[in-house]
Amino acid sequence: MNKIKVSIIGSTGYVGAELVHGFIAHPEVELLYLTSESFKGKKFSDIYPVYRGICDKILVSSEEVSYDTIGKESDLVITALPHGVSSKVVPVLLKAGARVIDHSGDFRYKDVATYEKSYKLTHPAPELLKEAVYGLPEIHRDLLKDAKLTANPGCYPTCSIIALAPFIEKGLIETEGIIIDATSGVTGAGRKEKLEYSYCELDESFKPYGVSGHRHGTEINEQLSFLSKDETGKSVKAAFTPHLAPFKRGMLASIYARPSKLFEGVDSAKVRGVLDSRYEGEPFVRVLPEGILPDVKCVNGSNYIDVTGIYDEDTGFIKLFSAQDNLGKGAALQAIQAFNAMFGFPEQTGLQTVVRGV
Amino acid sequence: MNKIKVSIIGSTGYVGAELVHGFIAHPEVELLYLTSESFKGKKFSDIYPVYRGICDKILVSSEEVSYDTIGKESDLVITALPHGVSSKVVPVLLKAGARVIDHSGDFRYKDVATYEKSYKLTHPAPELLKEAVYGLPEIHRDLLKDAKLTANPGCYPTCSIIALAPFIEKGLIETEGIIIDATSGVTGAGRKEKLEYSYCELDESFKPYGVSGHRHGTEINEQLSFLSKDETGKSVKAAFTPHLAPFKRGMLASIYARPSKLFEGVDSAKVRGVLDSRYEGEPFVRVLPEGILPDVKCVNGSNYIDVTGIYDEDTGFIKLFSAQDNLGKGAALQAIQAFNAMFGFPEQTGLQTVVRGV
Amino acid sequence: MNKIKVSIIGSTGYVGAELVHGFIAHPEVELLYLTSESFKGKKFSDIYPVYRGICDKILVSSEEVSYDTIGKESDLVITALPHGVSSKVVPVLLKAGARVIDHSGDFRYKDVATYEKSYKLTHPAPELLKEAVYGLPEIHRDLLKDAKLTANPGCYPTCSIIALAPFIEKGLIETEGIIIDATSGVTGAGRKEKLEYSYCELDESFKPYGVSGHRHGTEINEQLSFLSKDETGKSVKAAFTPHLAPFKRGMLASIYARPSKLFEGVDSAKVRGVLDSRYEGEPFVRVLPEGILPDVKCVNGSNYIDVTGIYDEDTGFIKLFSAQDNLGKGAALQAIQAFNAMFGFPEQTGLQTVVRGV
Amino acid sequence: MNKIKVSIIGSTGYVGAELVHGFIAHPEVELLYLTSESFKGKKFSDIYPVYRGICDKILVSSEEVSYDTIGKESDLVITALPHGVSSKVVPVLLKAGARVIDHSGDFRYKDVATYEKSYKLTHPAPELLKEAVYGLPEIHRDLLKDAKLTANPGCYPTCSIIALAPFIEKGLIETEGIIIDATSGVTGAGRKEKLEYSYCELDESFKPYGVSGHRHGTEINEQLSFLSKDETGKSVKAAFTPHLAPFKRGMLASIYARPSKLFEGVDSAKVRGVLDSRYEGEPFVRVLPEGILPDVKCVNGSNYIDVTGIYDEDTGFIKLFSAQDNLGKGAALQAIQAFNAMFGFPEQTGLQTVVRGV
Repeated sequence: MNKIKVSIIGSTGYVGAELVHGFIAHPEVELLYLTSESFKGKKFSDIYPVYRGICDKILVSSEEVSYDTIGKESDLVITALPHGVSSKVVPVLLKAGARVIDHSGDFRYKDVATYEKSYKLTHPAPELLKEAVYGLPEIHRDLLKDAKLTANPGCYPTCSIIALAPFIEKGLIETEGIIIDATSGVTGAGRKEKLEYSYCELDESFKPYGVSGHRHGTEINEQLSFLSKDETGKSVKAAFTPHLAPFKRGMLASIYARPSKLFEGVDSAKVRGVLDSRYEGEPFVRVLPEGILPDVKCVNGSNYIDVTGIYDEDTGFIKLFSAQDNLGKGAALQAIQAFNAMFGFPEQTGLQTVVRGV
Repeated sequence: MNKIKVSIIGSTGYVGAELVHGFIAHPEVELLYLTSESFKGKKFSDIYPVYRGICDKILVSSEEVSYDTIGKESDLVITALPHGVSSKVVPVLLKAGARVIDHSGDFRYKDVATYEKSYKLTHPAPELLKEAVYGLPEIHRDLLKDAKLTANPGCYPTCSIIALAPFIEKGLIETEGIIIDATSGVTGAGRKEKLEYSYCELDESFKPYGVSGHRHGTEINEQLSFLSKDETGKSVKAAFTPHLAPFKRGMLASIYARPSKLFEGVDSAKVRGVLDSRYEGEPFVRVLPEGILPDVKCVNGSNYIDVTGIYDEDTGFIKLFSAQDNLGKGAALQAIQAFNAMFGFPEQTGLQTVVRGV
Repeated sequence: MNKIKVSIIGSTGYVGAELVHGFIAHPEVELLYLTSESFKGKKFSDIYPVYRGICDKILVSSEEVSYDTIGKESDLVITALPHGVSSKVVPVLLKAGARVIDHSGDFRYKDVATYEKSYKLTHPAPELLKEAVYGLPEIHRDLLKDAKLTANPGCYPTCSIIALAPFIEKGLIETEGIIIDATSGVTGAGRKEKLEYSYCELDESFKPYGVSGHRHGTEINEQLSFLSKDETGKSVKAAFTPHLAPFKRGMLASIYARPSKLFEGVDSAKVRGVLDSRYEGEPFVRVLPEGILPDVKCVNGSNYIDVTGIYDEDTGFIKLFSAQDNLGKGAALQAIQAFNAMFGFPEQTGLQTVVRGV
Repeated sequence: MNKIKVSIIGSTGYVGAELVHGFIAHPEVELLYLTSESFKGKKFSDIYPVYRGICDKILVSSEEVSYDTIGKESDLVITALPHGVSSKVVPVLLKAGARVIDHSGDFRYKDVATYEKSYKLTHPAPELLKEAVYGLPEIHRDLLKDAKLTANPGCYPTCSIIALAPFIEKGLIETEGIIIDATSGVTGAGRKEKLEYSYCELDESFKPYGVSGHRHGTEINEQLSFLSKDETGKSVKAAFTPHLAPFKRGMLASIYARPSKLFEGVDSAKVRGVLDSRYEGEPFVRVLPEGILPDVKCVNGSNYIDVTGIYDEDTGFIKLFSAQDNLGKGAALQAIQAFNAMFGFPEQTGLQTVVRGV
């Protein structure tokens, strides 16, 4: 069988590099174009020397090979571009006939007003928002099969939604007053020449940021509200606070919610039970056994998300915890999982055994 | 004037070492005994070689120099011992005539039942609980002057109480439903030969721990309830979750609370205003200007605690953030601040200029 | 075709875990027994939770399954045991019929006296030293095909010998006065409950250790002398100094040597030329292009070793630099390369694409 | 007595910030101007928020306050400027009447040709080279008393010269064939917006750089040759190789040299003895006891340099090891030591007790 031709637009950022990592190992994929406006003409391995001899593909710019050409020659194009840029490039690729997985925020919302308020941009192609599938396979698996355009979820939304969805879907928690306190490793900020991300500034640093109105907050609330609306008609309003911690990869969400009246006899075992039954058979969601808490180290380099929960009798809160690799399940490897769903491969294909003990 | 004679019981843990750091720089103090059961006979600088030539004092064990002797010869003894041990040693020291600052949890509670439930121990000297002063100068400054026994607050309680007290004292937030999501650097776990604190296990790790019933939660709630009772009669029930992050020093608390009906016209400026007016003139509490958020890097090596807050209109939560050095304001340097209050020195004495830009 | 049955003795150390990582991905291998004396009865994924769902094999002790049984049922047994222990276990496994790759120093020497002096032990099975093949495929590829017992080289020796062998083999450098100044990441110290390897003690630490008489020095000198003897009859006496640096994986050797009279017209291009021609076609040795220097980051997680050299006209020294992952080419992945050579598979099998850009 | 008025030109780099740290604690100093071209008008504590409330001085640019004015109003000006810039600013300051300590390479050489070759610049004020004192108090203490212009030594030269000088001065080692293999923490690269110094690029990285013709090599050789010439007439030619390691502060030199014929009965005790007797009474050079090796952790935050040596019988090399804080003895704190020597204060003034155990 012919391999699927995949091109990556913006291949030299950290998400791009993780996509290369993942697709190189994918048995059904042939990497076609790797693009970079900054590094055109160089080899991918000039930018990431660990790839010397593994991926020495020459990087092309969009001037050398047009998006139209890339779209025509590729079965799938993955765009790892900044928001506001994706929304201009993706329509060209789709028109050229390629299916697209986009990593930006540009196609993650259904409500264009929420997008435009969150991103402070006018959307140039709002008609595509309806068509785009939010690429969380655990929620939208069925839609992915026929998706022309998949919006890869944000990193914080992925770990928040995976933890909360089982409860929201069944109305087991109150939709008001949810707290999502989350922490990302430094790759989450991208590959940037900025003093604030320099080694000496970040080592021994830990801090909140974007504490009010962070875009991932509106993304989380829109997605959870879709799940919730079916049941209760109420939209979800979680308060979201991201933090930056001195490790390269990984993301942890600590989530606080009140059980609703529907949650009869709530206790820790039942909280875990809700997660267990929702994610039984899911290849990449690991509901942790009693007494074990997520650690970003334990998902490093994988597409896994580890999740658990307890009920704190003293205060009446359900506490949920989820950990993922922000470049894995939080970005590039989740895109490969979605790719598998889109092209009819088992979702684990190419994603199985790349972890290490240390 | 004669210098105050200070001895440190348990001087080779990280808190003990930070006490040595602080007291060496203190112009009114003479270090008398440094004790260590594990390293007796060695020099302090054998354990911490950076102190070679600075502090080569010989470590003594309690067999060599009895607690009674230490108590008799010292004006102040600081105990940096595990809980359950302190409660046996401190009465001896007090009886011998020394004033004491204790770093364990053994004398932090007024309610012996809460202590015994939290620490799963029977308290051997419950009569001392009434006498002990909870050593947060910003709250109990007046009591410290005459304190014989000061219980140095826990690290998490310090940064939680400093952030919440101004609101609790005035009834400006609801006492139910407070969330304290906090993160500590690795020195918080102490100086231990444990695989879980080894470099290879902790680097690139981030995780919650003690997510239900952590002792510092009961300490926070008891202290905040004292402040609250005067106003409303209701006790405080905050849900507390600690995390461990890969940096050596520092602690951040991200706190979520609902404004009460007494908080008229709540907005971010007023939230900061409450902090500002409460801590005006405080030498070690820095209420950050608008737009600046705490970072543990920015308190590293100091006795400062940086604090700020916002009101999140979308969700109706007040978010408070506080950062301190867990060994500084969270432990040893706060003890020196309390020492200054106990002995009538300006609280900044010996605590002023030890920070570095990087 | 039947898969090769591989068992790992001592599977829960860092080398053991990397072996599991590598063999899981190996298409020709079936993992049979994973042993652990400390964690018997637990799952491998209890020790390394990142493996939950990937490798949940139950760990067995040698009491439960004897070495004789393991040797009989396995085609290959890899021993990741301390020196002095391996020398007792390996003969049992060989007698039972298994081929063996041993990770300790016990079978790396030909001269039992050098071993016994270096390790301060009496060797219980010196007759096996002759039979054992030193498992550096770039040097002893031909012998590995029929090896019953392969001694996996030490980490420092691997990166030292790979850099120096091309020059020693041709007599292009003086055999006296070679300096090997090398640095290891912390995994090189193993998975140990020791204060000196704790996060707080190692972060912001960098230091030499074992500066006189380190075992790897005698291993390097013996191996290089074999290569040299053929040509000049002189034994090699390199001075070796290891250092410990605060990163988890990786090893760099900076090597200084004088060109001999045989090295006509020595310059940097010719130094690189010697490396280039020696390692042409080698799948895992990457001779770096002009102007590029090795970085442990650029071999992280791989079986590659990056090597280069210059001639410093000012001082007359050849400087050679080599970088490898100490758990990769320096230990477990090199063992898999040797395994491939032993069992007739292409050496890259199972070792190809596991690197990441960040 | 009036305090000495000190201004810092280029106060927001890492060296500048460490100078602020040191001079704030100095009892005889009043900080006058802190300059910054990039951040003029901001407070020093806006750039280094840890200084909020400690140093909120407004940064001025040279347009606002001319170098002439600064030179006239200050007793001492410290320039922490790039090379090539210092050489233009320093003459203005000197002419205005200030004494100057310069941190660049511009005034460290006596031989202008070596400077111009090493820095690839034409020196605009070569006449000052003769006058400038190389600010290593352990070597040039006497000259510092009357120095108008002190050239603060490079970081690598400091730790190399301190280790080698005692042997070079007495002709105890061969001046040819010395190897200096040294490693710096990341602050050594300065405070820069460069991708290569970003957290994600440097964490888990370790590499050599500048392996041929690094400027600090010529600085080391010129200085050591001055010491050597008195005795033997031969100039020193050490081969120098710097490395970059993932820690913020600290520098270690591992040095290899051959004992000369003058070194009778060389052994490890005698090697240490040479260091001991040379540095007896030096306040900041700590010759380590037998069996203890330097660790950058053990000098962190201090002006100490820890040094030791062994004689390796097997290979005939003397190995010397020295560790310092690259911002401490390697830069800013050494400048304060030189300042003390210049102004007649005991050299320890303001430099005594700022270390921490962790």
